[in-house]
Amino acid sequence: MTSLPGLPGLSGLTEVESLDQTLRAELQHIIDTKTKPPGSLGRLETLARQMGLIQRTTHPTVARPAMIVFAGDHGIAQEGVSPYPQAVTAQMVANFLAGGAAINALSRVSGVELEVVNSGIATPLPSTDGLIDIPVAAGTRNFAHEPAMTHEQALAAMQAGAARVRHHAALGTNVIGFGEMGIANTSSAACLMSRLCGVPIDECVGRGTGLDNAGLAKKRNILASALAHHAVSNDPLTVLATFGGFEIAMMTGAYLAAAQARMTILVDGFIATSALLVADAFAPKVREYCVFAHASNEAGHRRMLDHFGALPLLSLDMRLGEGTGAVLAVPLLRAAVAFVNEMASFESAGVANRDA
Amino acid sequence: MTSLPGLPGLSGLTEVESLDQTLRAELQHIIDTKTKPPGSLGRLETLARQMGLIQRTTHPTVARPAMIVFAGDHGIAQEGVSPYPQAVTAQMVANFLAGGAAINALSRVSGVELEVVNSGIATPLPSTDGLIDIPVAAGTRNFAHEPAMTHEQALAAMQAGAARVRHHAALGTNVIGFGEMGIANTSSAACLMSRLCGVPIDECVGRGTGLDNAGLAKKRNILASALAHHAVSNDPLTVLATFGGFEIAMMTGAYLAAAQARMTILVDGFIATSALLVADAFAPKVREYCVFAHASNEAGHRRMLDHFGALPLLSLDMRLGEGTGAVLAVPLLRAAVAFVNEMASFESAGVANRDA
Repeated sequence: MTSLPGLPGLSGLTEVESLDQTLRAELQHIIDTKTKPPGSLGRLETLARQMGLIQRTTHPTVARPAMIVFAGDHGIAQEGVSPYPQAVTAQMVANFLAGGAAINALSRVSGVELEVVNSGIATPLPSTDGLIDIPVAAGTRNFAHEPAMTHEQALAAMQAGAARVRHHAALGTNVIGFGEMGIANTSSAACLMSRLCGVPIDECVGRGTGLDNAGLAKKRNILASALAHHAVSNDPLTVLATFGGFEIAMMTGAYLAAAQARMTILVDGFIATSALLVADAFAPKVREYCVFAHASNEAGHRRMLDHFGALPLLSLDMRLGEGTGAVLAVPLLRAAVAFVNEMASFESAGVANRDA
Repeated sequence: MTSLPGLPGLSGLTEVESLDQTLRAELQHIIDTKTKPPGSLGRLETLARQMGLIQRTTHPTVARPAMIVFAGDHGIAQEGVSPYPQAVTAQMVANFLAGGAAINALSRVSGVELEVVNSGIATPLPSTDGLIDIPVAAGTRNFAHEPAMTHEQALAAMQAGAARVRHHAALGTNVIGFGEMGIANTSSAACLMSRLCGVPIDECVGRGTGLDNAGLAKKRNILASALAHHAVSNDPLTVLATFGGFEIAMMTGAYLAAAQARMTILVDGFIATSALLVADAFAPKVREYCVFAHASNEAGHRRMLDHFGALPLLSLDMRLGEGTGAVLAVPLLRAAVAFVNEMASFESAGVANRDA
């Protein structure tokens, strides 16, 4: 058995088990004998089966669903790749803490616990009340010129993200999603995608928060140069350290820990999926625990989803981040466990099955 | 002003007003100044605006959401167009009343009031406790040979459906969906679609609850003959009476009354949309109040949606009916009103807007 280079600092974080298939046939039988034509609940049936396998039960539940939003700043913002100033990262975190952002409203209405983490914001925060304040550093370095972070920083961030998930696991959470905030982080995600999926950078770059055509062309040029500046490597830790952000590195560790804790993982949009690309490069079985919640309108996300062979649950033309796509899928998970736990069978209800 | 033929019995039911556009600009301004890139909440923004216009407020709500499931039997079932026996309609209604069907589980988990209506079931019910028991007749006649119902029956059913909606309006409901149960009712819906949309019957017919290839071919032949048997008419009441079901006719009236009561209407799948085709033929403005909740896997539903220029909110490979697709959209409506009512603006949160 060979050990992967650069992984000693991960101390077991990349060991993710395949789903135990013991209950698959029993789960399918339960689903198929409910009072409905076979297969007629479509994706809800797939979700119920997956959650049963993850939880190793024929009565899966949605328990204390949680959303962790990781926030961090990016040195690449200095290149003018976003139409918003870098200070907006800290301002939006203050908005999260005050309860006024989209993820606050959507988490509340969905009955989802929300936690906000300072993974490495550059601007001082007016208040840290209610914040999980564990920055790796005050923003990453500018990967147009040098790696965004050291390997040690990447490892520390992954472990910190994993620790947050274990905190929620201890409180009983079995469904979790990860969101993010970080001005310029679509640039980071696009470079991670290009390297990890082997896709030309032009197909990975989108308008982010709303670049015009000139801004988009500039962003493409800057990221193409940045990629050319760094030697090609297939080592996920090196790719993460070179192009990632602290929020992305924390999400990477969070995905791995969530799979280890046998949680159902709701995958959000472009940035969140880029972190999953890294986690998947470390431990491909992580994807067995994932529910791809939505298709973002950010260019490149569909291709990321294709990389996972994923059909997203929702396509609502959203492109906000923060975990807003992931949290909207929680009611669908609740619906899936409701039908499998609460519906009568043809036999129990005295309903005639089809003539066949 | 000319009166449409056959409409005196509708006593105003077809008078539906266009949405009042007075608040459109104010609503759009509120949506655009929330702390998010403009448009980044996608379909949630469209929903919030539509609900604001329907409710004539900048603070739309989801109040006492309700689902009415109309059940009725179809004479065309005698032709063997469904793999399930006709008795299943009554058995499934008993299952609804006992709380064991999919729509029960999904309504409960979505916090939606559920009402079950006997619109005209052929088989005696073991119990009517909890049922709104207002059958027009014990099933329709077989439209392979004669019109399914008289014009008077169609009008009575429409008025009865409208009355159920007014009942819920009086209780404070401002969001409503309609579901159905009726063995063979995909045959009825397919013929309504063919006549009202001018689409060849082969493109309207699907597998329903799960016909095999031979069953599907037989169903196509039977329905093609049935259509040929009845003179072509563009009068919606005649088309409804000829091919409809009592549950479909009640839904038709329910749509019209819901629009008159300025409710947001959640449109379910193939059967429910066929009833909307009829309502729309009476009063095209009804569609302004509609949210197309999901795309059914029943062949023909996509084309019905195209008829309305509708993009469904959800595509989950479902094809169950009962209102199960509609009820799953309720959390998305709650999310839409939550963001518009609860999010901070750039100004109120002290977040810098984009440089532009």
